[in-house]
Amino acid sequence: MNGKKGLLLVLSGPSGTGKSTVIAGLMGLRDDIRFSVSATTRAPRPGEQDGRDYYFISREEFLDMIGRDAFLEHAEYVGNFYGTPAAPVEENMRAGFHVLLDIEVQGAAQVMAKRPDAVSVFLAPPSLEELEKRLRGRGTDDDERIARRLEAARRELAQADKYTYTVVNDDANEAARQLDAILTAELCRSDRR
Amino acid sequence: MNGKKGLLLVLSGPSGTGKSTVIAGLMGLRDDIRFSVSATTRAPRPGEQDGRDYYFISREEFLDMIGRDAFLEHAEYVGNFYGTPAAPVEENMRAGFHVLLDIEVQGAAQVMAKRPDAVSVFLAPPSLEELEKRLRGRGTDDDERIARRLEAARRELAQADKYTYTVVNDDANEAARQLDAILTAELCRSDRR
Repeated sequence: MNGKKGLLLVLSGPSGTGKSTVIAGLMGLRDDIRFSVSATTRAPRPGEQDGRDYYFISREEFLDMIGRDAFLEHAEYVGNFYGTPAAPVEENMRAGFHVLLDIEVQGAAQVMAKRPDAVSVFLAPPSLEELEKRLRGRGTDDDERIARRLEAARRELAQADKYTYTVVNDDANEAARQLDAILTAELCRSDRR
Repeated sequence: MNGKKGLLLVLSGPSGTGKSTVIAGLMGLRDDIRFSVSATTRAPRPGEQDGRDYYFISREEFLDMIGRDAFLEHAEYVGNFYGTPAAPVEENMRAGFHVLLDIEVQGAAQVMAKRPDAVSVFLAPPSLEELEKRLRGRGTDDDERIARRLEAARRELAQADKYTYTVVNDDANEAARQLDAILTAELCRSDRR
């Protein structure tokens, strides 16, 4: 912490790109980052904790927050609402922490429109072939699901140029190092001083 | 080297900011950087080597190169011309090296106008008080010269916001690390891919 306001870091990447490993690597490199916790109207699953995994709120509360423009982004997904409450993000940033939003491309577009000062990074697989190999290697998806994930990845990759940075996850440690460098460089920008 | 074109790195900073130490630190962190060698019409001093310290060329050659727009920047200083020939910079960048221009603010402004893709960094002292302390510590300048250097530094510092990045040289190793991070981050920019 240096008494300055933290950065808002928006990170997107197709399923299977290895985002969680890269994020874990980044957290190992610097201790001034906080995760953003999403709000949702879906019921908690066993083991999920309010305020850690999600803020579990009612549909009425969610709609009220939409009305008060209290989300950086929100979406409805199979009948439930999901969103990023702006207030905790702001609080952490004011306290000097960088806040990481791990978010899909539509949500990221909403955040970037609302917060042009956000640092946006697209995490890309080295290639679609490599992504397919990784998805098959996980052994959790059948052929049809893998085909759907690859189709989604293709659509998401076409959005990479909407992000200021693109980090190719060839090696998770190297990708984490690049994310770290991006934060360091952004803090040196003359227009942020 | 990764087969990609290198970056053009423009670095300015007032005399006494510790630029040479920071540059030496940066060269220790990465081996893919080359210095730009300036051309000049002044006579070589003892020990100076053509092509290493300067390209020593005639006034006619220099004027001819100006006419062919062969400089990234040039200036006249106490009767001699100084300039940055574009060709060796381009060659090194095409070979995948980042090229470092250590250059004062007027020259930097010319380069940035010609090469909007250049990465520009202003190296600043922590404060004018600290700069004065460092200049006095060197013991090479008398009071009048120090006063003139401080006045020049004040003018140059007012130009810092023309540079994309400002690195404060509080600690030379940390400043070198930030320059390294800036290069790494710039290579991740989606608009450079």
